[in-house]
Amino acid sequence: MKKITIVAFDKFTDVDVFLPWDLLNRVKFREKDWSVKIVGSKERHISVTGIPVPTHGIIEECNTADVVFFASGAGTRALIKDPEYLKRFKLNPEKQLICSMCSGSLVLAALGLLNGITATTYPTAAQELQSYGVEVEEKPLVIHGNIATAAGCLAAVDLVGWIVERMLGPEVREDIIASVQPVGKGLECIY
Amino acid sequence: MKKITIVAFDKFTDVDVFLPWDLLNRVKFREKDWSVKIVGSKERHISVTGIPVPTHGIIEECNTADVVFFASGAGTRALIKDPEYLKRFKLNPEKQLICSMCSGSLVLAALGLLNGITATTYPTAAQELQSYGVEVEEKPLVIHGNIATAAGCLAAVDLVGWIVERMLGPEVREDIIASVQPVGKGLECIY
Repeated sequence: MKKITIVAFDKFTDVDVFLPWDLLNRVKFREKDWSVKIVGSKERHISVTGIPVPTHGIIEECNTADVVFFASGAGTRALIKDPEYLKRFKLNPEKQLICSMCSGSLVLAALGLLNGITATTYPTAAQELQSYGVEVEEKPLVIHGNIATAAGCLAAVDLVGWIVERMLGPEVREDIIASVQPVGKGLECIY
Repeated sequence: MKKITIVAFDKFTDVDVFLPWDLLNRVKFREKDWSVKIVGSKERHISVTGIPVPTHGIIEECNTADVVFFASGAGTRALIKDPEYLKRFKLNPEKQLICSMCSGSLVLAALGLLNGITATTYPTAAQELQSYGVEVEEKPLVIHGNIATAAGCLAAVDLVGWIVERMLGPEVREDIIASVQPVGKGLECIY
């Protein structure tokens, strides 16, 4: 079973959890052995707009996942100042795909996962990311081996594409991405 | 106060509620008198992937809203067969903007709102939409006066753009849409 964890927290940006969540769940139409969970440090987290989302598991589940996806939002600023939270993660970029949307890159930096590599982030988080010694690139998606950072909400489509291609190959990637394109602009139904 | 209602229901497609929800909430950075509610026929509805979303109000709130946005998903098929549900709507396309994502167009058709006009929908719903006598166009967005139908999840960006421009003009539209573009591909921060 391939296991994907999306890390949520209080004050997450709605679309940065729910767009990848929806896209990654579509993979189940192509691959039965595929699990997607929203994980967190509470039984539910509340988005920046006030939507409560029950978590499917605790953040320690990331430590045994195949893919760890950090969402973004104003709430990342509290996480990176919380050593007790951060030390619950024992991630291994040699064995896991690890990635972030927008300001989720700050959590990657706080975990030391961006040491010596470049990354992208939402412009309002760029200075804070640089303060970790990370060189910020103004690109939608920056990939170094098993670590990817994406920024600008709709770049989640590219980031999910990268995950799906790395896990299941380019054909499944194409199917998933085509399933959300506008009608007349590349939409292909997969179910 | 401008009032926007997003109609959810059991088995809604996650991204077709949460992407417009997130985008429409961003308008509050530009316009304080702006309310967005997810409405339904229950205290909470469960998405097709199992995410429960508490509703902010009942579907009758649509009858006094400025904009009524029907989400999509497998659950639309139950709604259109439920006369008790449908008759709770007293919508007026002379005074309200009324729109749908993907198979949400079936609910517009069942309410008689697409009589004599064309519409777009998700390909798997096209035949059912035609059964209402509606001519289906293979386009991301079809607009007739105050009624708009969009299809293919990412066409929600165009549909929300139409709503925002109609309500608040082209500058606010540009700001909202720019705020979710990928970094390096048009992203502009609005907060």
